[in-house]
Amino acid sequence: MAIITPEHINQFKKIVGENNVFSDSESLETYGKDHTEKLQFTPDIVVKPKTAEEISAIITICNTHLIPVTPRGAGTGLSGGALPQLGGVVLSTERMNNIIEIDEKNMQVITEPGVITQVLMNAVKEKGLFYPPDPNSKGSCFIGGNIAENSGGPKALKYGVVKDYVLNLEVVLPTGEIIWTGANVLKNATGYNLTQLIVGSEGTLGIVTKIVLKLIPHPKHDVLMLVPFNNLEKASEAVGAIFRAGFTPSVLELMEIDGLKIVSDFVNNHSFPVNDAIAAHLLIETDGNDKEVLMNEMTSIAELLQQYECGEIFFAEDESQKVELWKLRRKISEAVVHAGYTIEEDTVVPRAALPNLIRAVKELGKEKGFKAVCFGHAGDGNIHIRINHPTIKNSYGSDEMKDILIDLFKVVKKLGGTISAEHGIGLIQKPYMDIVFDKTTLQLMRSIKKVFDPNNILNANKIFDLN
Amino acid sequence: MAIITPEHINQFKKIVGENNVFSDSESLETYGKDHTEKLQFTPDIVVKPKTAEEISAIITICNTHLIPVTPRGAGTGLSGGALPQLGGVVLSTERMNNIIEIDEKNMQVITEPGVITQVLMNAVKEKGLFYPPDPNSKGSCFIGGNIAENSGGPKALKYGVVKDYVLNLEVVLPTGEIIWTGANVLKNATGYNLTQLIVGSEGTLGIVTKIVLKLIPHPKHDVLMLVPFNNLEKASEAVGAIFRAGFTPSVLELMEIDGLKIVSDFVNNHSFPVNDAIAAHLLIETDGNDKEVLMNEMTSIAELLQQYECGEIFFAEDESQKVELWKLRRKISEAVVHAGYTIEEDTVVPRAALPNLIRAVKELGKEKGFKAVCFGHAGDGNIHIRINHPTIKNSYGSDEMKDILIDLFKVVKKLGGTISAEHGIGLIQKPYMDIVFDKTTLQLMRSIKKVFDPNNILNANKIFDLN
Repeated sequence: MAIITPEHINQFKKIVGENNVFSDSESLETYGKDHTEKLQFTPDIVVKPKTAEEISAIITICNTHLIPVTPRGAGTGLSGGALPQLGGVVLSTERMNNIIEIDEKNMQVITEPGVITQVLMNAVKEKGLFYPPDPNSKGSCFIGGNIAENSGGPKALKYGVVKDYVLNLEVVLPTGEIIWTGANVLKNATGYNLTQLIVGSEGTLGIVTKIVLKLIPHPKHDVLMLVPFNNLEKASEAVGAIFRAGFTPSVLELMEIDGLKIVSDFVNNHSFPVNDAIAAHLLIETDGNDKEVLMNEMTSIAELLQQYECGEIFFAEDESQKVELWKLRRKISEAVVHAGYTIEEDTVVPRAALPNLIRAVKELGKEKGFKAVCFGHAGDGNIHIRINHPTIKNSYGSDEMKDILIDLFKVVKKLGGTISAEHGIGLIQKPYMDIVFDKTTLQLMRSIKKVFDPNNILNANKIFDLN
Repeated sequence: MAIITPEHINQFKKIVGENNVFSDSESLETYGKDHTEKLQFTPDIVVKPKTAEEISAIITICNTHLIPVTPRGAGTGLSGGALPQLGGVVLSTERMNNIIEIDEKNMQVITEPGVITQVLMNAVKEKGLFYPPDPNSKGSCFIGGNIAENSGGPKALKYGVVKDYVLNLEVVLPTGEIIWTGANVLKNATGYNLTQLIVGSEGTLGIVTKIVLKLIPHPKHDVLMLVPFNNLEKASEAVGAIFRAGFTPSVLELMEIDGLKIVSDFVNNHSFPVNDAIAAHLLIETDGNDKEVLMNEMTSIAELLQQYECGEIFFAEDESQKVELWKLRRKISEAVVHAGYTIEEDTVVPRAALPNLIRAVKELGKEKGFKAVCFGHAGDGNIHIRINHPTIKNSYGSDEMKDILIDLFKVVKKLGGTISAEHGIGLIQKPYMDIVFDKTTLQLMRSIKKVFDPNNILNANKIFDLN
């Protein structure tokens, strides 16, 4: 890899304007970290382009001179995908923050990548439309980052993840060309699905500059309830039972009691029962257009849950109670970090294997001397595991933690699962890819990377090393 | 490409058994055609393996000796994807016809590729589960072929296409290795999405030998109605209006009156009104678990449609009436072929552009002297256009028809659409790929093909030529 010269910097300034190139130490620090553990790297320069054409011009220079480029959205990633661990250029999409068109007739939105997900959701909701994928960071993350990581969120359970909404992408390739991957249509069997190859490729194959998303009618009502269980395994068994009974809730989240205790303190809200008899809660939502149908559905689910020894159910009576409940769930991640749980894993298994996974986590914790809080998208079999190790606070670079994670991921693999559901591999999960993929499969991925990025300049050494 | 020798044939026989290698003229004829126009090619040999390991052994020989291999499901394809236009080996998956496991707990099914789609749908329905993608040929096509073409069908409107249900695939690569593309989980952000790259790749990147599909609870009820319109454009405008009003029907099919006339004769059922005042019908279904809700929804949709000058609506009162209605829709394709409409296009545009597309088809027909019947998945913007040209019965190899299709596809592209929604590109749509993709994008696809199939032995020269 090459070193950035003043001449390169001048060229970047000509392309994006003087004011959009940064090399002050504060910028370099800010753009050298994200929400992944406590990692920090230093780029040589931060560039903030406004258009695909500007990105094309920048990346062409970098490709010619072998300068590493790390694309960056809002920096809320949890796998280190936006970290410039090789230095070089951080290319921030924050100025590309226009919603280009809400096409109500076709129920589609065309947007730039730097729009905050919640802003996009609100804008389409005003037209009665719904963009469901709602990662926990929706209030600050960018839609472009969501594409890169194939994000999920609570609503993924009923409505699917980002990949299920992406119809077409404008992408700047590492070699400078600007392409469209597909068409603005709901069904497409025209050539290889480059759209789906780009989604979840973590900014290693190209930089997404325009995004066409499918929208659906916004459901008119939702009903929310919090269900305590005295037994963690019963709670996770109940998850499967709800689906087998024919229900499809819009949300089905699990929160271990330790997590709820921590977050209750963190947001200073103790209005929901948190006591030593309780092991976990399920947060369950149904949504639709007919309130009575929803209420009936919730009542039936509540009856079903009695068989799994649930405690007294709390129904959210109004919007403010819903907001409070959601605040608990949404703030868990932040709260447990604050409480010292720095390392977050994003495991996913077939739904019925959830009790086995949680049991294995607890046993591993006992054996290796760490505490773990499990929470997340139980309905999808996707559980976030936040680890509080007495001495190790980063997984990256720690051999001891690596041994722990190898044990964990081997269990996940054995249960039919995989190591990331919605956070991506990035930098920190890279050492574990060979647990879930064989050499041939990893080599296919590497070869695809080489097709898109022959000089390995774009977000190099993320997902896998290119050796 | 090399020629098959008796020695190769002996090796194939050793691998799959004498009885599963065919070179008689009847077999070679049968396996040299599919449902695409009136095309016929002759393979050198037909091999019917039973396992992934057998396929691996066969393809390793072919890769070593540069023998063309064409994978084949049930041969119901409409784009020539299974046609052995280079000779060589036709590799039929018809003996790989086991449903391996219906995993009720996780609502997944693991199946071999040679299972008939309807058989699979019925088997999971018996467990209360639903696999929605229902191509018109569901009674005879294989699920493996559906993966290859990313098939859709009427229910795709509400439930999505094949790609939305595929969780994981076992694939034999052209180089002989057997890989799994993902994991049996609902969410996956672990490396590039090879699963989605294989879906819709038309048997050019690998041979799918095991398929893990997501299932959903089977809806308990459905309601079906047939709505006549005196004006084709009003009918297609009504399609968009239904969605904008917040409804998501499970089916929303358009049938031009010419098609309905032909199919009414073909199935000898004239119980539905077909007269010269009518221009088209919409076939509309809603489904769900609450019959009353569905009836209310249908009533609201029916009221809405009055604004689009619909005629007297026919509600299907019972199962037998539903069956009759569906027979009309399902048999259109066969009926119009019987009536001389041999060339079928699979155009898709953003939903609101449907009236423009249909108008363009009619104008082009007048200008170029052909008749066209439009029918299909209007709710998705996906219209099948069957063409009856007085002299040309195949598009393949006809320069005159090629000129017509170039004009048609340029309109489709201009409207924001593309040339195939669910049939694939295969052999017959290949000449038109450069209308919808630029050179860079096509070159990316070619390079991906080379990654998987360096010797270009597997379904070579489908989708694009590899030059």
